[in-house]
Amino acid sequence: MEIKRPSDSITTMTNLVMPNDANIVGNLFGGKLMEWMDICGALSAARHSKNVCVTASVNNISFAKPIHLGETVTLVARVVRAFNTSMEVYIEVYAENIKKGTKRKCNDAYFTYVAVDENYQTVKVPAIQPLSEEEQELFELSLLRRQLKLLMAEKITLKDAPELRAQMVEWMETSKG
Amino acid sequence: MEIKRPSDSITTMTNLVMPNDANIVGNLFGGKLMEWMDICGALSAARHSKNVCVTASVNNISFAKPIHLGETVTLVARVVRAFNTSMEVYIEVYAENIKKGTKRKCNDAYFTYVAVDENYQTVKVPAIQPLSEEEQELFELSLLRRQLKLLMAEKITLKDAPELRAQMVEWMETSKG
Amino acid sequence: MEIKRPSDSITTMTNLVMPNDANIVGNLFGGKLMEWMDICGALSAARHSKNVCVTASVNNISFAKPIHLGETVTLVARVVRAFNTSMEVYIEVYAENIKKGTKRKCNDAYFTYVAVDENYQTVKVPAIQPLSEEEQELFELSLLRRQLKLLMAEKITLKDAPELRAQMVEWMETSKG
Amino acid sequence: MEIKRPSDSITTMTNLVMPNDANIVGNLFGGKLMEWMDICGALSAARHSKNVCVTASVNNISFAKPIHLGETVTLVARVVRAFNTSMEVYIEVYAENIKKGTKRKCNDAYFTYVAVDENYQTVKVPAIQPLSEEEQELFELSLLRRQLKLLMAEKITLKDAPELRAQMVEWMETSKG
Amino acid sequence: MEIKRPSDSITTMTNLVMPNDANIVGNLFGGKLMEWMDICGALSAARHSKNVCVTASVNNISFAKPIHLGETVTLVARVVRAFNTSMEVYIEVYAENIKKGTKRKCNDAYFTYVAVDENYQTVKVPAIQPLSEEEQELFELSLLRRQLKLLMAEKITLKDAPELRAQMVEWMETSKG
Amino acid sequence: MEIKRPSDSITTMTNLVMPNDANIVGNLFGGKLMEWMDICGALSAARHSKNVCVTASVNNISFAKPIHLGETVTLVARVVRAFNTSMEVYIEVYAENIKKGTKRKCNDAYFTYVAVDENYQTVKVPAIQPLSEEEQELFELSLLRRQLKLLMAEKITLKDAPELRAQMVEWMETSKG
Repeated sequence: MEIKRPSDSITTMTNLVMPNDANIVGNLFGGKLMEWMDICGALSAARHSKNVCVTASVNNISFAKPIHLGETVTLVARVVRAFNTSMEVYIEVYAENIKKGTKRKCNDAYFTYVAVDENYQTVKVPAIQPLSEEEQELFELSLLRRQLKLLMAEKITLKDAPELRAQMVEWMETSKG
Repeated sequence: MEIKRPSDSITTMTNLVMPNDANIVGNLFGGKLMEWMDICGALSAARHSKNVCVTASVNNISFAKPIHLGETVTLVARVVRAFNTSMEVYIEVYAENIKKGTKRKCNDAYFTYVAVDENYQTVKVPAIQPLSEEEQELFELSLLRRQLKLLMAEKITLKDAPELRAQMVEWMETSKG
Repeated sequence: MEIKRPSDSITTMTNLVMPNDANIVGNLFGGKLMEWMDICGALSAARHSKNVCVTASVNNISFAKPIHLGETVTLVARVVRAFNTSMEVYIEVYAENIKKGTKRKCNDAYFTYVAVDENYQTVKVPAIQPLSEEEQELFELSLLRRQLKLLMAEKITLKDAPELRAQMVEWMETSKG
Repeated sequence: MEIKRPSDSITTMTNLVMPNDANIVGNLFGGKLMEWMDICGALSAARHSKNVCVTASVNNISFAKPIHLGETVTLVARVVRAFNTSMEVYIEVYAENIKKGTKRKCNDAYFTYVAVDENYQTVKVPAIQPLSEEEQELFELSLLRRQLKLLMAEKITLKDAPELRAQMVEWMETSKG
Repeated sequence: MEIKRPSDSITTMTNLVMPNDANIVGNLFGGKLMEWMDICGALSAARHSKNVCVTASVNNISFAKPIHLGETVTLVARVVRAFNTSMEVYIEVYAENIKKGTKRKCNDAYFTYVAVDENYQTVKVPAIQPLSEEEQELFELSLLRRQLKLLMAEKITLKDAPELRAQMVEWMETSKG
Repeated sequence: MEIKRPSDSITTMTNLVMPNDANIVGNLFGGKLMEWMDICGALSAARHSKNVCVTASVNNISFAKPIHLGETVTLVARVVRAFNTSMEVYIEVYAENIKKGTKRKCNDAYFTYVAVDENYQTVKVPAIQPLSEEEQELFELSLLRRQLKLLMAEKITLKDAPELRAQMVEWMETSKG
């Protein structure tokens, strides 16, 4: 099966924050932003897998900086790692200041999608080949997050997760210093 | 400051899945469900803190079982742990079969909220006192999740997270077996 | 056929008033509140009848006190009387002040629903057995409202409505005083 | 103060039933129709009173015949009686068959609105002078409905409602036959 | 085939500008108004052709005067010319001042619709017979707009558009003066 | 004042057609697409002018090919010509077939926007310098469309529109052949 790069699945979505999207203090409502993230991530996963993709889990979303009514929001999503039938997608959210021509990063998120066929059965997806240093780092962190999730849900032990085990040893070493 | 129990902040939200809420295969759209979760969790955090609460992060959402058009959805949210100005809220989602009078659990999620005053400044929130065994377990896991998040973001080392360190040692022991 | 109590069908719905739900003076828009009432009442009727329920009529809604943007709204619905294939549902609407932990009652409403099967044919529903004094009063008023509606639509005469006739006699007596 | 006819306040609203407006069996969702009724009635009351009008109560709505996806809906509202600061508005709902050029009446409703000034204080509204026989009948029924509502809420006795008392006597006579 | 007048297809739609419909400066959002225009025009074309109509093109919309939150908007649409299977519809938009009982014209637009049967195949539509002077003028301008569009898309030459050619000669004459 | 190229204002918007966006035959509803066009075009104009932009007119939209439920829609907007305080934006709409990795062009549109400052007063915008042959062609057509609009509205004569006059002469020559 074909191997792809994260950049092959980059999907960009632009929106204007309208009154309809705002919460009671005039900022972009978190529920609305999550809806946009979900669609943008699903399109990125679909671009990677050439199949319809459904959301399997949200691994993390951070709401670091509020986005205001009337601002332009850009979401950029790309697949950072693929695991047999699932893909982890990294989504970055920027708010744009039109006057100054500047952008500030406001949030990021990790969503996992599963590719399905016409009968709603899961299908295999291409693997990811990271090239740049940043892609490599996201690729490795993705595996650690996955192993941690399975470990905390008691579906695996550390024996099945050598990469996470190595990371834990490293954390322990560092904390001794 | 007052200490509260998780049960003090239980918030229940009931919805009917209308065509407007469905995705293209006729199930409840993930983005819509996240919107409902966000509101239900915010109301629970508000009930705990007696203040307006804004979403700080989504720690995890799992979309285990699809919910269908026409089904009744019940969300139940409660604060499982409080950390100075933030609260972790656990949200469970059930779909109900009216004919049979049965409910199935479809999803769960962990959201973190921050309490703010009229000037949008963070305020201290009451601590949580878990009583039941389940409450105690959610209480302990909440701290581990928080320490892991800070550790992976390189904001702390394991030295600052003795509970997580102990858990890691236990995981390592178990995997030796 | 089984007999049920009003409390068996209690259905609670919680919502946050978002900008999207407000009218031009910043209060919860009446049309939106009616939509929420309709869904909450239908779920209560479904819980009573174990069948899908469709709205047959709105008997009365009073909009006594406005609800403001950012407030938490709780709707509580329960079946007060059943008539062969139809049910009258009483819906109360509360707005909550999070800071003070108080609730004020803002509106109430009476909706009538009909239970239908898969072929959209009406089906019989369980009778209601009121227990508390308040349940008993709502139960009796429900019959009077129904008889009045049929009488004013010229579908019955007072001969078919002995309870209403007795009530009229009482009203006449009282007014003589 | 000026006296007006019901026809002076006739307000017509036309809508197409889109997927967004449908319930799970493909008919116009009751909550949506109530929203349209509320707006159409408020515009009619505003036309009569030359002021902004807010909904005071829904006196009755009957959902006699379902309206289907893709049909054209026409709402016609007019003020049938005015009482000092409030107005009762009668709203008729028609569904149109474009191919045949026919219309069928599907629902009707009675809403009460109150006129308010810039400071949200109630203001006096013009009286209604019914001319046609149908207008006269709606005019008289409107008073009876109002007296009944006040009587059932124990805000008046029959002494304050001579028209309703006369009607009751007539109902009693008729039922003797 | 039957010949009809523009007045046979007049369709009126009334709406209240709610917060949900406003842009960030508190005026009716252009995208929302276009949505209303599209529905109102499609209903007018359906009334003319006795068939479902789909939008083929928007020929022109001018946004001359903003409409404010809380204002009543009335759209009036009528077919001004029919061309075999398509119709050009003229849509006028008015905002109403309830207090003063005045209306101001805010926008107008020309939309073209095509009538389709159950199999989504285009069907012939009745011709238009303009009667009043205004109807006659709209009728003639409609043909010129159509010929110009085809000419600019290089689908015809001026040889196929004698009316447009005559108009061009007139424009040239006028500009000589 | 700065001169810019059309490519400086390219704005891309990606959307998934959800049930909420569909008309009664399951295709993307025209009113919804116009709403997306309006936002995408406004963002492109804002990028060109570094100011908030409001819609002045829609010059043309063609709905050539329907877009289906579940398809991914991409809108691409860029400023093709600037006139003192207004800009004409060309918007192309593509539907994407994920499985095949192909895109088909479905619609295009021309919108005119005006740049405004904080006080809602129009402000001057940078001129456009077309470079490629396609950009040059769009640049010239934009002027002709503007002159035609003013001429048909009787706001100018051909004397004020030498480019349009020359084009008319050319059309007349061609049609003689």
